[in-house]
Amino acid sequence: MNIRDKALQARRPKRGFSPAEFEGRLARAQEIMRRHSFDALLLTTPPNIRYTTGFDTQFWESPTRPWFVIVPATGGPIAVIPEIGAPEMALTAVKDIRTWPAPRPEDDGISLLADALSRLPRTFGRIGAELGREMALRMPVIEFFALRDRLSGIEIADGSPCIWKIRAVKSPAEVEHIRHICHIASDAYAALPRIVRPGDTERDACRKLRIDLAERGADSSPYLAGVSGPGGVSQIVCGPHDRVLEQGDILFIDTGSTYDGYFCDFDRNYAIGRVADRARKVHEAVWDATEAGIKAAVPGATVEDVWRAMATILEAAGSLGNNVGRMGHGLGLQLTEPPSNMRGDRTVIEAGMVLTIEPGMEYEPGKMIVHEENVVITPDGAELLTRRAPRELPVIS
Amino acid sequence: MNIRDKALQARRPKRGFSPAEFEGRLARAQEIMRRHSFDALLLTTPPNIRYTTGFDTQFWESPTRPWFVIVPATGGPIAVIPEIGAPEMALTAVKDIRTWPAPRPEDDGISLLADALSRLPRTFGRIGAELGREMALRMPVIEFFALRDRLSGIEIADGSPCIWKIRAVKSPAEVEHIRHICHIASDAYAALPRIVRPGDTERDACRKLRIDLAERGADSSPYLAGVSGPGGVSQIVCGPHDRVLEQGDILFIDTGSTYDGYFCDFDRNYAIGRVADRARKVHEAVWDATEAGIKAAVPGATVEDVWRAMATILEAAGSLGNNVGRMGHGLGLQLTEPPSNMRGDRTVIEAGMVLTIEPGMEYEPGKMIVHEENVVITPDGAELLTRRAPRELPVIS
Repeated sequence: MNIRDKALQARRPKRGFSPAEFEGRLARAQEIMRRHSFDALLLTTPPNIRYTTGFDTQFWESPTRPWFVIVPATGGPIAVIPEIGAPEMALTAVKDIRTWPAPRPEDDGISLLADALSRLPRTFGRIGAELGREMALRMPVIEFFALRDRLSGIEIADGSPCIWKIRAVKSPAEVEHIRHICHIASDAYAALPRIVRPGDTERDACRKLRIDLAERGADSSPYLAGVSGPGGVSQIVCGPHDRVLEQGDILFIDTGSTYDGYFCDFDRNYAIGRVADRARKVHEAVWDATEAGIKAAVPGATVEDVWRAMATILEAAGSLGNNVGRMGHGLGLQLTEPPSNMRGDRTVIEAGMVLTIEPGMEYEPGKMIVHEENVVITPDGAELLTRRAPRELPVIS
Repeated sequence: MNIRDKALQARRPKRGFSPAEFEGRLARAQEIMRRHSFDALLLTTPPNIRYTTGFDTQFWESPTRPWFVIVPATGGPIAVIPEIGAPEMALTAVKDIRTWPAPRPEDDGISLLADALSRLPRTFGRIGAELGREMALRMPVIEFFALRDRLSGIEIADGSPCIWKIRAVKSPAEVEHIRHICHIASDAYAALPRIVRPGDTERDACRKLRIDLAERGADSSPYLAGVSGPGGVSQIVCGPHDRVLEQGDILFIDTGSTYDGYFCDFDRNYAIGRVADRARKVHEAVWDATEAGIKAAVPGATVEDVWRAMATILEAAGSLGNNVGRMGHGLGLQLTEPPSNMRGDRTVIEAGMVLTIEPGMEYEPGKMIVHEENVVITPDGAELLTRRAPRELPVIS
């Protein structure tokens, strides 16, 4: 078995983060919690638990057992978790670990959690939970209700704006994680024309890329969509299918692969043999829009400004719109995070944010071309984490 | 790139399911819904949406946009989804597709969904949603509250027992999907001693298996945990880590890989060189317990009976218990589904159920051995979907 690109693997950032990193995250969290008048955050989802504790398990793929982490106003996180996770949680910096023998349908951690929350010092009488935008509580709603009923004098309020604010600005170590997976995927995309052939199906192409990403050091590829069509595609999020790649097609591939929990999220387009001139010109316009989006992504601007910079170019190129609804978003421990580069999102860009720049346009009904790069915001503007795609469509022949 | 085992791939079941399959699922769902007094089910999670419509997208990895499917008491499903999913949903049997331009933070489908639910015929005034055991609603809780407030005279109740009942019995076509991924993983496990070496890390071993599974035709491996330790492991759900495999270790690997949406979920143990006699004996006892569990899994028995058959053998072998909390569970579109093979779960086994048989025992503090097979229940008893592991520990040398 060939594990590729030893050089790239040698440059990979160390897995995990230093104790100082977690202390910094905790301090940042507690400061933002104070501004949001929360005595604690109650976390149930993998990315939020991982962000605050460093704890990870693929076992979250099983929906049977809820897991809880409390971030109090002062002091370290409290883990309230199934027994099965105790040996590994003990390896993190979390000192306060409370377990129950799960699954226990009659009380799957709820009494233990209620007890922990009830004993917290109270300043505001409010706990923030993952109740709002771009979050879904990872526990049964009826057990959330049962928890609420057990807490007298404590309000459980929507903590999602607070939590997203905490995670929006990435530390230098987080950025290096994202850069690493962006480089792995950039290399794999560059090599794709050497392993995919006309006559392959979309599914073949995606499988080959999936294997290549793993060989290059990606941990997983939870998102790896491939779509093809003559001169463009009708949608970009479903697939691959068994459609055979034919002359004149554009093959669109998009991956959210991970390294040590952190995602890249960007796509590439390939011409299968010779594609129509109009499609090639539209690809260049979308590339130019990406360039404008990258330039507009500076501290102090809004993500709406970034969207407008791209939309202006796409409109001039004859865009009929697109069904994606936005032109990029935040990126980190999740494939997509707030904000959204779209009309109406006035989130102010700060140094340390990581964004996708993702313009797309339909130029004929059913023919869409979408492009994407990932950037980190520095005090001087956006810096590419991906290796910039070529303006001219690469050809698979 | 070597795409392995063309023979196995040639035997793979056709992707997707026939219109008759979906008509059968709908009829089954609507009959069970009537027994639970529901006028409709409201579905938000990928496996439930996929089960009822056949629609799939990896895009669910992004938490930004909620998706909804309504299963009414009569007639076909209604999809209330982001515009981005419309072209693909139009390829399914779903005739009633309603979309909104998402993301739209001020109303991300809630008014459209409330309208659709309000217009349903009412017999019971109750709608079942994914509010209970082993389910987590895939939408912001505060938007669920907003939805509830918009529905006058309709109660949204816990639909999870009803939904799990619908999905518990697999169709023959579903079973063939699960059998296929079980065979892919069985072959990969059998080949593992040829590609993993002492001196590899746990992470190396898992990466090699991940690549091999993809080459053999697995679509993805959302769960692929590997742990090692001298004579056994202290836990089975976290890892891989960078621990180097050494003489006397047992390497435990467990994968939930998928084919066309359906999971296998089973593990294998390997001796790194020569392991202690006690560990080998315990492996055989756990293998024997598996055998007893498979024999006990017959229609009419309960999953508690299956648990007891295994627990009896493990206790006789000197088990100190284990921290997993159960000895197997349901399997299908999710890595784990109800029921749980454990004390107190009196779910009656029916033909068509797919179960994991998963005994495990700690025989010294920190030394646990866990074994697992997947079976489908037939009128005559359990039939293996996995290729049975050898009773004697396979050796990596």
